[in-house]
Amino acid sequence: MVIEQVPLDVIAGSEAEFEAAFDVARHELAGSPGCRTVRLARCVEIPNRYLLLVEWDTLADHVDGFRNSDAFTRWRGLVAKFWDPLPTVLHFTDVVRMDNTAPAD
Amino acid sequence: MVIEQVPLDVIAGSEAEFEAAFDVARHELAGSPGCRTVRLARCVEIPNRYLLLVEWDTLADHVDGFRNSDAFTRWRGLVAKFWDPLPTVLHFTDVVRMDNTAPAD
Repeated sequence: MVIEQVPLDVIAGSEAEFEAAFDVARHELAGSPGCRTVRLARCVEIPNRYLLLVEWDTLADHVDGFRNSDAFTRWRGLVAKFWDPLPTVLHFTDVVRMDNTAPAD
Repeated sequence: MVIEQVPLDVIAGSEAEFEAAFDVARHELAGSPGCRTVRLARCVEIPNRYLLLVEWDTLADHVDGFRNSDAFTRWRGLVAKFWDPLPTVLHFTDVVRMDNTAPAD
């Protein structure tokens, strides 16, 4: 499993419009083969900064699959106009994962 | 709930030592009141870049609670020596969360 991490700087003042567009566009991401989870969160300290985290079964599901799909074109068409600058995407793999909220065995 | 996001640049060549130290230090984080989850992931594109994500019940659990605790002093003592530069911590709150792996209703 791989985590796609995208820091998103949204044009100040367009946050509500971006969130509404994301609410449509997220289905293009979530419906793509290998997509496990989609999470968008908004920064407390910098109100026009967002964090997009997408979990994929494999790196190829994102970079070869989604990015070459019609869904990607639709996704970008809906949300990229709100981003300035265009984001730098990085991928991560888990080293440690602890969950205090999981039921004990 | 608030997500603490910390991009960590670890001194190149000390990744294994950092991961071993984190494996001890993570219990200081996870045992702090209000800590829900701890996740450390390593970057695919930049091998000495890590992403630390910690979920807290509230922002105060992190910034007032953990950061003023003896556990924080122990945590920093174990892992901060591997970081260059010292990281910029940001907090985020969820806008959207979708999980394709969750059982359907």
